[in-house]
Amino acid sequence: MPITLKELAAFCDARIEGGDPSAIIHSAADITSAQQGQVTQLTNPKYVRYIKESTATACFVAEGLHAGEFPAHIALLICPDPEMGFIKAVEKLHPAKTYHSHIAEQSIIGNSVTLGHDLFIGPYAVIGEHTHIGDRTAILSGAYIGCNVTIGQNCRIHPYAVIYDNTIIGDNVTIHSGAIIGADGFGYKFRGNAHRKVPQVGNVVIEDNVEIGANTCIDRGALGSTTIGMGSKIDNLVQIGHNNKVGKHVIMCGLTGVSGSCTIEDYAILAGSSGIADHVTIGQGAVVMARSGVAGNVPAGSQFFGSPAKDKKTAYKEQIAISKLPDLVKKIKLLEEEIRQLQNRASFDE
Amino acid sequence: MPITLKELAAFCDARIEGGDPSAIIHSAADITSAQQGQVTQLTNPKYVRYIKESTATACFVAEGLHAGEFPAHIALLICPDPEMGFIKAVEKLHPAKTYHSHIAEQSIIGNSVTLGHDLFIGPYAVIGEHTHIGDRTAILSGAYIGCNVTIGQNCRIHPYAVIYDNTIIGDNVTIHSGAIIGADGFGYKFRGNAHRKVPQVGNVVIEDNVEIGANTCIDRGALGSTTIGMGSKIDNLVQIGHNNKVGKHVIMCGLTGVSGSCTIEDYAILAGSSGIADHVTIGQGAVVMARSGVAGNVPAGSQFFGSPAKDKKTAYKEQIAISKLPDLVKKIKLLEEEIRQLQNRASFDE
Amino acid sequence: MPITLKELAAFCDARIEGGDPSAIIHSAADITSAQQGQVTQLTNPKYVRYIKESTATACFVAEGLHAGEFPAHIALLICPDPEMGFIKAVEKLHPAKTYHSHIAEQSIIGNSVTLGHDLFIGPYAVIGEHTHIGDRTAILSGAYIGCNVTIGQNCRIHPYAVIYDNTIIGDNVTIHSGAIIGADGFGYKFRGNAHRKVPQVGNVVIEDNVEIGANTCIDRGALGSTTIGMGSKIDNLVQIGHNNKVGKHVIMCGLTGVSGSCTIEDYAILAGSSGIADHVTIGQGAVVMARSGVAGNVPAGSQFFGSPAKDKKTAYKEQIAISKLPDLVKKIKLLEEEIRQLQNRASFDE
Repeated sequence: MPITLKELAAFCDARIEGGDPSAIIHSAADITSAQQGQVTQLTNPKYVRYIKESTATACFVAEGLHAGEFPAHIALLICPDPEMGFIKAVEKLHPAKTYHSHIAEQSIIGNSVTLGHDLFIGPYAVIGEHTHIGDRTAILSGAYIGCNVTIGQNCRIHPYAVIYDNTIIGDNVTIHSGAIIGADGFGYKFRGNAHRKVPQVGNVVIEDNVEIGANTCIDRGALGSTTIGMGSKIDNLVQIGHNNKVGKHVIMCGLTGVSGSCTIEDYAILAGSSGIADHVTIGQGAVVMARSGVAGNVPAGSQFFGSPAKDKKTAYKEQIAISKLPDLVKKIKLLEEEIRQLQNRASFDE
Repeated sequence: MPITLKELAAFCDARIEGGDPSAIIHSAADITSAQQGQVTQLTNPKYVRYIKESTATACFVAEGLHAGEFPAHIALLICPDPEMGFIKAVEKLHPAKTYHSHIAEQSIIGNSVTLGHDLFIGPYAVIGEHTHIGDRTAILSGAYIGCNVTIGQNCRIHPYAVIYDNTIIGDNVTIHSGAIIGADGFGYKFRGNAHRKVPQVGNVVIEDNVEIGANTCIDRGALGSTTIGMGSKIDNLVQIGHNNKVGKHVIMCGLTGVSGSCTIEDYAILAGSSGIADHVTIGQGAVVMARSGVAGNVPAGSQFFGSPAKDKKTAYKEQIAISKLPDLVKKIKLLEEEIRQLQNRASFDE
Repeated sequence: MPITLKELAAFCDARIEGGDPSAIIHSAADITSAQQGQVTQLTNPKYVRYIKESTATACFVAEGLHAGEFPAHIALLICPDPEMGFIKAVEKLHPAKTYHSHIAEQSIIGNSVTLGHDLFIGPYAVIGEHTHIGDRTAILSGAYIGCNVTIGQNCRIHPYAVIYDNTIIGDNVTIHSGAIIGADGFGYKFRGNAHRKVPQVGNVVIEDNVEIGANTCIDRGALGSTTIGMGSKIDNLVQIGHNNKVGKHVIMCGLTGVSGSCTIEDYAILAGSSGIADHVTIGQGAVVMARSGVAGNVPAGSQFFGSPAKDKKTAYKEQIAISKLPDLVKKIKLLEEEIRQLQNRASFDE
């Protein structure tokens, strides 16, 4: 979707400085690879060296940047928030795929399903009985939606995502391929030398504006609901066990596991491959750093690292101390030797 | 499926104390949220505070609990094992979904397939040639069953689970959505500056009463079988490599990885995000704690923690020592100083 | 596919020593279980004890092995590289499944798709518009191929693998079930107290001879491509984030996560459950050991261990020192005591 520099600047509320306003921009690229006809951004000073050799046609930058550093052929697109300006440009130049109103013949729609308007339902999709799908939602090829499910407006359910019965999903929710929402939680009681299954009869509730990555699993509550709050973003291959309460605007990165009955408060961040034991609370805005394993509550606003995870400052101090440890072992041997000598001399003195 | 308190008590072999036997119970809930018309359980003393403010109609408790602690409106359901009593109640009030005998038109059943009676085969399911499916088993929408597969009675294969060729599955096995059973193991030989694939021609054998979580992968043997013993329960997103021998009644929690050719003996527990190197034996009843990485054999009955994992007592002692380490570093500096002084004084004395 | 020992030896370029050349070999097995009619291999001296009690008919061994150690009934198949000889034998005795030229009626092929010859397209497979599939490639049941995708020759895409739009795949590529190629990368900007999505408009490029395990996820580039180099092998449940550049002949084991914008150079090995922070370079041939978490660059040819990962030698030294740490704590207490005594004596001497 090519567009002139002038049109792009207007669309993104940016001011042009230098360059040719009638130049055609056909796509966006990052600063290390942008070429003629492309727009890029410079928001991190350590990438200035790339812009100096760039053949890009335009570059989003913040107000007040010294234009002299840029090659003359690059038009500057100046705006207060160049990252958001660039995002707008990318959205304009590379528009997201849209799905027209269409229900594939080769889909199966159960009894008593209620469908909004302007829906797309792809081939081999299955929608169970008593389910409701909101307006403009796209259920892509082979997505499986169980019975008694509610899905809001403007959602996108990608191929082979599976939504088990009784799940409730808000508006503007994206669920990527292979994500499994509402499978049984992992609960057993040990009786008679065997694991007896605890019935898992709850559901999953996902609020508006949530995005769920590919092959991520969110288990239904044992009783009651597992909930994902508004605006939370969950990466690929994340495991969220039964009865977790995930707050609003939470971030969970890939391969993270949250065992069960945890509370993850608003704005918390669980970095990649982190893990949370059951019945734990992660406080508001807390950060669990990559690969950390949390066994107890994490206070709001804190940063935790390690396994078992501790306050970042404590954990880092320990890490530094560990790196000195092999030397310490030698040093202590030396000290022992010196004390021996002092003791010998002392007894000699007697 | 509402029921009177009296009927529920009879069904669960519980004795009623207090409350109105003709009260209607419509569902089960946990103790923090149960309300009128609901039954709950109190098995952990630390939750007593919830029962005091609860509007629940009934509560499973153990014999001998002091009834005076409970509000008068709550009927006590007393039985020797209130957890199992409550499980029975949940099963009664929230009966599991059943599938009637039905084979969807939009399914594909290969040549020479033998089908038991009272089967459910959902739409878009595919069943390969020479496969056998036992009585009362449900192959849900889009489940893919390869060729030469045997599946026993009363199994449930959820949407988009994939069972590769030659897999053997016992009775009462549940496989959740997206689980992949029998994909190639990960084996290569490095020759001529490239990784040459070692053919993976074995299969997977799953015994009775096994449950396998969503998006879990169990690879086929390279030669011979990867086996999962009777009654073992495997959570979501678990990776079980080729030629592992998993015993009976083993528990594996989410995001755990078992590389290959391991023996996991009966009743072992692999907690969340743990990992086992290849050719390792985890002894009977041993526990590998969360996020632990095991590189050598783990003795039966032991508990291992950490990465590299060690006996829990050793690992905990080390963890405590590490937490003292930053202070230790300072203390050693101090000791060195003191020894210097003693040495100086000693040489001054000479 | 039974075959005489003589034929098998000829096929594998091996020399027979002992045994009956006309004996029938029907299958291959590992050395711990091989029986009459089976061929096995002995390449690891620690397994010699198995061969002594084996009823196997034949065994691949290296030139120069002392035949006297073997039971007389076992024919030796001698060749310079017995592992590769055995691989050939396995391929001959257990030939890989082949798919004849066939396009299932119950598949959906979009407009302007170009198909090579001798293709297999299974039931419920979906192929989007403007996609190209090369000769002799098999798209198995329910595999979903998006629009504008290119897939080369001799590829195999297993059931319910999902290939998003614009992916480019070379020749001889195998993608196992449930793998998701090209879902959105995980990128957000925090604005107005919410996470605003960074558009993910790039693609995934996979070169020749790559194998991708079950339920593995490879995200599309935000802008530009996420690339997987020729001959790289990726295990199950691996997460590869956006804009990673994975080199040639790289190995990534199960449950590994590579966050984003990393460079994994040729021949690097990421062992099981390892993790790589973003914008990191793993040098050529470097090994990241199991469960290690890498936060900075790893030099070519090095081995890194731990979380945070360090050079293996350093990490192992630290591990040894940690194992001494509890004793060290006691020892330091003792030293303090001894110094106190020396100090007391010194002040007494004054």
